[in-house]
Amino acid sequence: MTDANGCGKMQHEHDFKNPSRMGSLTGRLKVEPARATAEMVAEAAQVSRAAVSRAFNPQAPLKPEKRARILRIAEELSYTPDRAARALVTRRTHLVGIIVPDVCSPWESQEIDALTTALQAEGFATLLFKTRTDFSMDETLLTYMRGFNPDSVIAFTENVRPHILARFLGRAVPIYINYPMAGVADGRRPGEPETLFDRIDVDQWEGMEQAVALLAGYGCRRIAYLSGKRDSLAEQARRTTLQALMARRAMGDPAVIPGDFSYDAGYAGTVDLFRLGEGVDAIVAVNDESAFGALDALRYELKLRVPEDVKVIGFDDIAQSHWKSYNLTTVKVDLDTRVRALVRLILRRLKDPQAPALSETVRTRLVVRGTVG
Amino acid sequence: MTDANGCGKMQHEHDFKNPSRMGSLTGRLKVEPARATAEMVAEAAQVSRAAVSRAFNPQAPLKPEKRARILRIAEELSYTPDRAARALVTRRTHLVGIIVPDVCSPWESQEIDALTTALQAEGFATLLFKTRTDFSMDETLLTYMRGFNPDSVIAFTENVRPHILARFLGRAVPIYINYPMAGVADGRRPGEPETLFDRIDVDQWEGMEQAVALLAGYGCRRIAYLSGKRDSLAEQARRTTLQALMARRAMGDPAVIPGDFSYDAGYAGTVDLFRLGEGVDAIVAVNDESAFGALDALRYELKLRVPEDVKVIGFDDIAQSHWKSYNLTTVKVDLDTRVRALVRLILRRLKDPQAPALSETVRTRLVVRGTVG
Repeated sequence: MTDANGCGKMQHEHDFKNPSRMGSLTGRLKVEPARATAEMVAEAAQVSRAAVSRAFNPQAPLKPEKRARILRIAEELSYTPDRAARALVTRRTHLVGIIVPDVCSPWESQEIDALTTALQAEGFATLLFKTRTDFSMDETLLTYMRGFNPDSVIAFTENVRPHILARFLGRAVPIYINYPMAGVADGRRPGEPETLFDRIDVDQWEGMEQAVALLAGYGCRRIAYLSGKRDSLAEQARRTTLQALMARRAMGDPAVIPGDFSYDAGYAGTVDLFRLGEGVDAIVAVNDESAFGALDALRYELKLRVPEDVKVIGFDDIAQSHWKSYNLTTVKVDLDTRVRALVRLILRRLKDPQAPALSETVRTRLVVRGTVG
Repeated sequence: MTDANGCGKMQHEHDFKNPSRMGSLTGRLKVEPARATAEMVAEAAQVSRAAVSRAFNPQAPLKPEKRARILRIAEELSYTPDRAARALVTRRTHLVGIIVPDVCSPWESQEIDALTTALQAEGFATLLFKTRTDFSMDETLLTYMRGFNPDSVIAFTENVRPHILARFLGRAVPIYINYPMAGVADGRRPGEPETLFDRIDVDQWEGMEQAVALLAGYGCRRIAYLSGKRDSLAEQARRTTLQALMARRAMGDPAVIPGDFSYDAGYAGTVDLFRLGEGVDAIVAVNDESAFGALDALRYELKLRVPEDVKVIGFDDIAQSHWKSYNLTTVKVDLDTRVRALVRLILRRLKDPQAPALSETVRTRLVVRGTVG
């Protein structure tokens, strides 16, 4: 519904230059019964053509009674605006693609929920695409996604290589969460120019520094890091940040519990750490869900007390973290701030397709609950 | 990608009968640089036009080397298939709308995840729409959704009134989860004919009977029902089923703990029940998430033991129910079975738009874990 800016500059694909297809389309039109146009609705409702457009755009200002009257007449005449047709004219589909491996992981589902609400308020709809975390679906998925012509795409760098995404999507500018750091493969071919990506960065440092300071203040010396999947950039960023913060305090290197962001891996890894070695004073987890697994392993399998025997800190602050069974101390990424930043990036980019790469940074802070103290 | 059947019968809106818009579209085409067509790709790759179509459909059978070659040449020629244009010809958008109030509730997010995977495998993409549970967004949301022309729409009856949805969407056939039972307002106007809805029913009886039998076997007499939101059909179905099952065993009527499906309401309601009254032997919750709240209230606030003092049974079997802190006995709705049934309904309906209303029923069964015993 924000069709006003920059549309003419955006590329758009179509088959209408092909006369044979055009002919077949025209052929179909002839046999159809006549259908109402926006002009017919405008005339019947005694309003302008523009008012009819606005009536079908929940964001456009229009008096409630006027909108209700237009919609009632549109319904009587069986008129419906068609985005497929309009997309050919406006070059906008009003679709924002989101590429995720797990809709049902708590953090992702909370982010998708907040993002869908925010995008809907701006006239966009959220188009979900599932991928694998190992890049194996890159080409198939992107070929598939391209057919839907999203106006923008949100992806996590660890799931789709940015240059491959840009090559396939062309028109839509991907917005990245966790842009690749130095040394991470981005799928760029030799000689291929740098491509435009807008990005959201999460500043892990501030919240994690508060976490390490709190643990140090309680006298913890032996700290373990419960990791995510090895290739993940969130994993790498959190691990290196924790290592740097512990080195600054001369606390040595953290023991690493191999995980994959899941409850089950957090549980199993924590059991192994204590059964096979000497254990630790504290566990800092890559995310909340795996911290829950560590907590349950400590309490139910290893019969240790949290926080008395072992302290646990998570990352994200998902809704479940305040549940009494967990009551988790965690590094919070403010979801609303992050979603607002994402929507801002999308709107800025659509307004100015030629702008240099945009970025926003989201801060973190420690939320202290019952698992440290 | 499953364009073959029934397309000609489906209604489709367009602006192309309007000569002035047609002119402006043609005007745009003239100033654009020439772009590759599917035929150009077919010629360059020395394959048929149909093979090019298949190469862009991940579900269509094609030799991997052949697909790779076609995609490489398509990329070199900057060819992309366009669904917006194709939708005008095929009358298919390959979009399936899902209307939900909470993407992030565990059950919904797990269902959306499984559904997106299954739909993607059939060539569809999932379009998310958020609504409120009080019907207040019906008209605005549906006006908005209509513009995207989904091929099908999945909705929960408690969130959107079926007749209002059908009236707004016309072309797309809504698939309902929990079709309204007798007496539930469906938004039908006086004299308006019955409309077509396909539907999924959940058979609550079998699993809940197992739950009540287990509680009776452990000697529970005073059972409370932790409810969902009052207007919800899932809520009404589970409550009346529990009442009927208890009446059959002459166990009297369950006490009702007012809830709203959330952890927090389950927690607060359980505290109230025991602080204000005599408490109960067992709590049967409308869903797992509120059962977690009840469990935490019993253990952490009321200092009662589960299952020794009070037994708890949930409904759904979400992934979190096996977490050790909860380890919840619950009535399982098999998600894969339900998603397969949903996709089957969508495909059957698209194949035969004139078929009478379709329905599928998903069974339930008790999963016994640690909160009863």
